[in-house]
Amino acid sequence: MVDIDLNSAHRQLGATNPLIQCITNTVVQQFSANVLLAVGASPAMLDHEADAAQFTQIASGLLVNFGTATSHQFLAADSAIDAATTHEKPWVLDPVSIGAADYRTTRIRRAAAAGPTAIRGNASEIAALAGFGLGGRGVDSTDDVDAVLPAAAELARETGAVVAVSGPVDAIVAHIDGVDHVAHVHGGHALMPLVIGTGCSLGAVTAAYLAAATDTTVAEAATSSDARAAEGTSTSATLTAVIAAHAHFAAAGASAGEHATGPGSYAVAFLDALHALSAEELARVRVEVDALESVAS
Amino acid sequence: MVDIDLNSAHRQLGATNPLIQCITNTVVQQFSANVLLAVGASPAMLDHEADAAQFTQIASGLLVNFGTATSHQFLAADSAIDAATTHEKPWVLDPVSIGAADYRTTRIRRAAAAGPTAIRGNASEIAALAGFGLGGRGVDSTDDVDAVLPAAAELARETGAVVAVSGPVDAIVAHIDGVDHVAHVHGGHALMPLVIGTGCSLGAVTAAYLAAATDTTVAEAATSSDARAAEGTSTSATLTAVIAAHAHFAAAGASAGEHATGPGSYAVAFLDALHALSAEELARVRVEVDALESVAS
Amino acid sequence: MVDIDLNSAHRQLGATNPLIQCITNTVVQQFSANVLLAVGASPAMLDHEADAAQFTQIASGLLVNFGTATSHQFLAADSAIDAATTHEKPWVLDPVSIGAADYRTTRIRRAAAAGPTAIRGNASEIAALAGFGLGGRGVDSTDDVDAVLPAAAELARETGAVVAVSGPVDAIVAHIDGVDHVAHVHGGHALMPLVIGTGCSLGAVTAAYLAAATDTTVAEAATSSDARAAEGTSTSATLTAVIAAHAHFAAAGASAGEHATGPGSYAVAFLDALHALSAEELARVRVEVDALESVAS
Repeated sequence: MVDIDLNSAHRQLGATNPLIQCITNTVVQQFSANVLLAVGASPAMLDHEADAAQFTQIASGLLVNFGTATSHQFLAADSAIDAATTHEKPWVLDPVSIGAADYRTTRIRRAAAAGPTAIRGNASEIAALAGFGLGGRGVDSTDDVDAVLPAAAELARETGAVVAVSGPVDAIVAHIDGVDHVAHVHGGHALMPLVIGTGCSLGAVTAAYLAAATDTTVAEAATSSDARAAEGTSTSATLTAVIAAHAHFAAAGASAGEHATGPGSYAVAFLDALHALSAEELARVRVEVDALESVAS
Repeated sequence: MVDIDLNSAHRQLGATNPLIQCITNTVVQQFSANVLLAVGASPAMLDHEADAAQFTQIASGLLVNFGTATSHQFLAADSAIDAATTHEKPWVLDPVSIGAADYRTTRIRRAAAAGPTAIRGNASEIAALAGFGLGGRGVDSTDDVDAVLPAAAELARETGAVVAVSGPVDAIVAHIDGVDHVAHVHGGHALMPLVIGTGCSLGAVTAAYLAAATDTTVAEAATSSDARAAEGTSTSATLTAVIAAHAHFAAAGASAGEHATGPGSYAVAFLDALHALSAEELARVRVEVDALESVAS
Repeated sequence: MVDIDLNSAHRQLGATNPLIQCITNTVVQQFSANVLLAVGASPAMLDHEADAAQFTQIASGLLVNFGTATSHQFLAADSAIDAATTHEKPWVLDPVSIGAADYRTTRIRRAAAAGPTAIRGNASEIAALAGFGLGGRGVDSTDDVDAVLPAAAELARETGAVVAVSGPVDAIVAHIDGVDHVAHVHGGHALMPLVIGTGCSLGAVTAAYLAAATDTTVAEAATSSDARAAEGTSTSATLTAVIAAHAHFAAAGASAGEHATGPGSYAVAFLDALHALSAEELARVRVEVDALESVAS
């Protein structure tokens, strides 16, 4: 169905050392930067409205996360998203804090409408962004991952993004060649949600894997005589990159759990494990890719 | 005198998992979020002036700390404090950086005048906020905790807040039924002040304990036929919550010291210890509650 | 040539506990504060444009780093730099993100022209600030330290600053009595660049060592009958302070490497090692001071 070569994606990340611009919340900037360095990417948290977009042109990829956004950061993100679109840089939207208050919800919806390459959030956030959440159709903050797969699929179709839903088992949804695909990625650890930024930094790493995959994808698409096929190839490559980012986290998250005695030591062990990830560990991550119908039924 | 059941407060925190809005300085946002998660609360650092107050209505409690405040954050805090007051959410003021420069001092005094549920700072900050500090009456930056108890008591009477003074032994002052009470909480470790955010995050945890106690307090007050008695009950419950937050830190701080070889490993061990806190450890914390006169004499 | 007493500088830092104002990027504020505490200084990240300059007058030293600057922070830095100049407080410029986009580059150049006591950056940043970088004269982002020594020397002559270039071996350039001096400081560890903030916090520690040295320097200069000699003495003392800061990091960085299994545990061990630094460790750091010509030839 979809060919997933995680170790190839991981090697590509190490070989390209992509520069990831993070317009992200101040709570997780340090952790996200350390996570990007640990996996082999380079972070840049530049978010001034006067020059963010100029920097996007030299960055390899972009993350947008409005958790503690100021009006200045919203302006910076608007410009950076435009630049990413114009210059065909992959970018990831993390809808964190959607539904917490009206103004930010509006801004997050605007960003989603601008066509991110991928969207990553927890079940409640994805449901809210798809318009299913916040009581609208009865999906609440205790949403579990599989319950929001129809919402994620609708969001994927509407935005063209690959949509990742984080949870005890992550689910990643992509609309490829008219079919909704869903990948489940198993791993992680119970202490992971007790470390702030483990979700937000996964958005940054997703941007890094997408950036690393971009050159290859463009080359493949160029040799295709059929634009539609090229688009399918591109979405398939995007799906692979998003899965690889989640598998990298799943493997490191499980490994860190073996060395931790609480959330403080878990955070330390997680950074060590992200950096030490071996091909064997990555190969052991359980990943299942199916058509969405077979999951829903 | 005042009945303190620390383990009941701790169980209540775990059972309610309060959502704490932190309008706080960017230096300690990550650490404060990790501390809140470790003790069983949920952090949200949302501080945009356009929607901070809307979020306060769904939050369980609020922390205000102007260490790195921008004008935008001052505006957000103004609105959030109004919302907390209107919707009877407990909120904590940390007067960090008072006296460092005039503008912030003015803003911190405005916040104190708005009636926080609790105020938490070190001895110099509490003295400065009470108007005794900065050379005004000879209290300087080497203030020790017991020397500022009269200032803390005056601040408690003027603002209606429970006032906590952090130091090698913490002191917490409350004006209940016409009497100034002071609680001393023993614990912690010499490395604690070398980890940035151990003070600021204690303000966040104080808000969490207050939020967890709020439902119970309201219920008790409602069954009282005497408004004055209800107010006394309420301040007493507030005092218990503030003491419990400090005892949680004191126990974890002492425990972390046994596993640390310096300030880096201490910070890690402290997060682990906050999360692992047992009823036995909490029960071993030395807490003394007295009328303030008996201490001052 | 230049008399370097690292242990005297280290003792002076511990004895004076300087208060360092950091107008710095939000990614590294927490780490920089912890680093300052670990070495025996006190951090203050106050950067509001309304009162930053007032605080500079009571601070012992200032760091300016525009990695995530907002317009507000640029305004705060303008005022703080003026205050540092007027009140003769040592201040350090970290040109991080120069060349990444035009607006910030302009602002960083303005700050450099205001006469910092020291400038600290990596090789590419120093080359860019000196006008050699970004393809202008063929120096690119893979610059190594010794390749940019001529650029560093030109920058030292133009600004009057001691210029530090961070790399596997750090180089520190000063123009003293008409001669360009260069000090090489050996140490550190391969994991150090994988921890965000190890460079930026070195700028903060440089400001701390400069602040600790200031009283002594002023006293020495006052007893000199020759203003030119006093200036030479002053630059020599500045060079010593900058070298001492780098040696402190080099020793702790090497020591941390012995206890780390990856970048997460390295960051923890580094803070512990900064705090535990002994006179013996500092004395073992290899430091070479030469006239620049002998290096360039």
